[in-house]
Amino acid sequence: MLFALDAMGGDKAPAEPCRGAVMACEENAELSVALVGKRESIEPYLDSASARVRSRISIVEADEVIGMGDNPSASIRTKKNSSMRVAMEMVRAGEAVGCISAGNTGAIVAGGVLVVGRIRGIDRPGLAVPIPSLERPSLLLDVGATVRCKPLNLCQFAHMGSIYMRSLTGIANPSVGLFSNGSEDIKGDEVISEAREMLLKSGLNFDGFVEGKDVPLGRTDIVVCDGFTGNALIKFGEGIGELVKLIVHRELSGKLLPKIGAALMMPALKKIWSRFEYEKNGGSPLLGVNGIVIKAHGNSSCRAIAGALRVASGFAGLKGTDLIKESFE
Amino acid sequence: MLFALDAMGGDKAPAEPCRGAVMACEENAELSVALVGKRESIEPYLDSASARVRSRISIVEADEVIGMGDNPSASIRTKKNSSMRVAMEMVRAGEAVGCISAGNTGAIVAGGVLVVGRIRGIDRPGLAVPIPSLERPSLLLDVGATVRCKPLNLCQFAHMGSIYMRSLTGIANPSVGLFSNGSEDIKGDEVISEAREMLLKSGLNFDGFVEGKDVPLGRTDIVVCDGFTGNALIKFGEGIGELVKLIVHRELSGKLLPKIGAALMMPALKKIWSRFEYEKNGGSPLLGVNGIVIKAHGNSSCRAIAGALRVASGFAGLKGTDLIKESFE
Repeated sequence: MLFALDAMGGDKAPAEPCRGAVMACEENAELSVALVGKRESIEPYLDSASARVRSRISIVEADEVIGMGDNPSASIRTKKNSSMRVAMEMVRAGEAVGCISAGNTGAIVAGGVLVVGRIRGIDRPGLAVPIPSLERPSLLLDVGATVRCKPLNLCQFAHMGSIYMRSLTGIANPSVGLFSNGSEDIKGDEVISEAREMLLKSGLNFDGFVEGKDVPLGRTDIVVCDGFTGNALIKFGEGIGELVKLIVHRELSGKLLPKIGAALMMPALKKIWSRFEYEKNGGSPLLGVNGIVIKAHGNSSCRAIAGALRVASGFAGLKGTDLIKESFE
Repeated sequence: MLFALDAMGGDKAPAEPCRGAVMACEENAELSVALVGKRESIEPYLDSASARVRSRISIVEADEVIGMGDNPSASIRTKKNSSMRVAMEMVRAGEAVGCISAGNTGAIVAGGVLVVGRIRGIDRPGLAVPIPSLERPSLLLDVGATVRCKPLNLCQFAHMGSIYMRSLTGIANPSVGLFSNGSEDIKGDEVISEAREMLLKSGLNFDGFVEGKDVPLGRTDIVVCDGFTGNALIKFGEGIGELVKLIVHRELSGKLLPKIGAALMMPALKKIWSRFEYEKNGGSPLLGVNGIVIKAHGNSSCRAIAGALRVASGFAGLKGTDLIKESFE
């Protein structure tokens, strides 16, 4: 299976995407990666790869780059030879099974719609992120593809999220929560109330409203919200993680006993921390487009990129896109 | 200074509100509290108070209670003899400097508007919460009074938040961030874009858009958002806190070395944890109403209630309501 990887996208490109491709190909002998970008920027990172791995990594030349600050839809339209757009063209042409980028989120979403194309029947795509929880991750969508939603969009996210979670986890009938500002039926605004009515009749395993507190506690397998809210939540979670790291560092610095304590706790602490590093488990699928499009975190390390490739090949193996198409066509 | 405390509001009423009143009066010799509710439910909790404290606590009879699940505006309108409404009537009549309730949030907001009344010039009130951060807390508003906002509402929250933070912290010109789904100018929806234009011309120390990550890191002194978003953030933060507690407990149980480690780290851990227990620092002021109305967390302990009384008397001492009135009238 060949995946197109935007080698120029993200804060640490091209180094980390290239290293991530090597890492993923080492792990998975079935995987081939086309690194899309500037050949001379990419090649140095492939020198250390073994022949076994190197033979499965190709370079596809693309001499433009979409920057993190570029206007999303304008750049995807006009930069026809950008690494991100070329990677997406490969998916549309059937040359690649899917594409991965750690670049400009808005451009990935715009390219998903304009280049890869929507699945017939889908009004707007949704970006889905697995959220760590106590027992098993929940899927939160949308986290930024569709900033403000119609009730139909929220309903379609619920359908697509259910298909994705069913194929990913094997749970036959994953539960769906609709995010609101409280769990009582009277909560929410007009859009959310109408979406609730639609979901009650949807045939999905709809569990009513969930509120902010329920999301980390994993009350439902899927949490549906508009892209503004989902984006707010995941970034707020990131900020809390950074704050805790800074405070812990400050509280422990120069103090012997707490430091010894931290050392003794380290294996447990690392295990706890790893739960929250969801980026290690890879990227966020853009659900609702006619092919696999995975957004990796802008700050992705090679491990995160390898994780995104793992998500992409898992999704391909489960024929996730076909399942969504069948359900909506 | 006499404050009216809704003795029947909150998950742990009347025990914790009554104990909180005693605790606050022990701490602050200037404080008097009128406990509003059912006399026979309140009295047992006052038996242990010293005469010095007991003389400053009165009971105001109110035989109805607004429940957590009651319809907010209907219950505040119809339950005229409810503890919450009677406490608010005392503020309107000038018998109490302010009121505090850990009860139904929607009813507190509805009562703030219908009973205490809005300050002239204020379109909608905002509920403000101090958010822990690295250096000093930021003020987040609105966290649930006005679910969806007009640009004017967001602008007025920024003004009121600035006045509150200035009086509370002494910072002459606190910085204001407008919450959005990214820090670039093109982010946000129409309401947020228009609010941004208004804030740029407002004369406030406006620092542009802030995103989820910036809030715990304290990028600005004040963060303005609609009530839906603010509610989502604080509850999500609460959920993360609960999840971390559960995971830590699970990872440490039955393991000796990590447990010793935790014991050695305990003073540092407690210090870290206390930063996040913002409820200890008390309640959230409902800004924009014509008197002091403080909402305490529904799950408030006596310490949290005492904290809310501290916030209320601090706000009264600074003449916060008058400062907002002067600015808008």
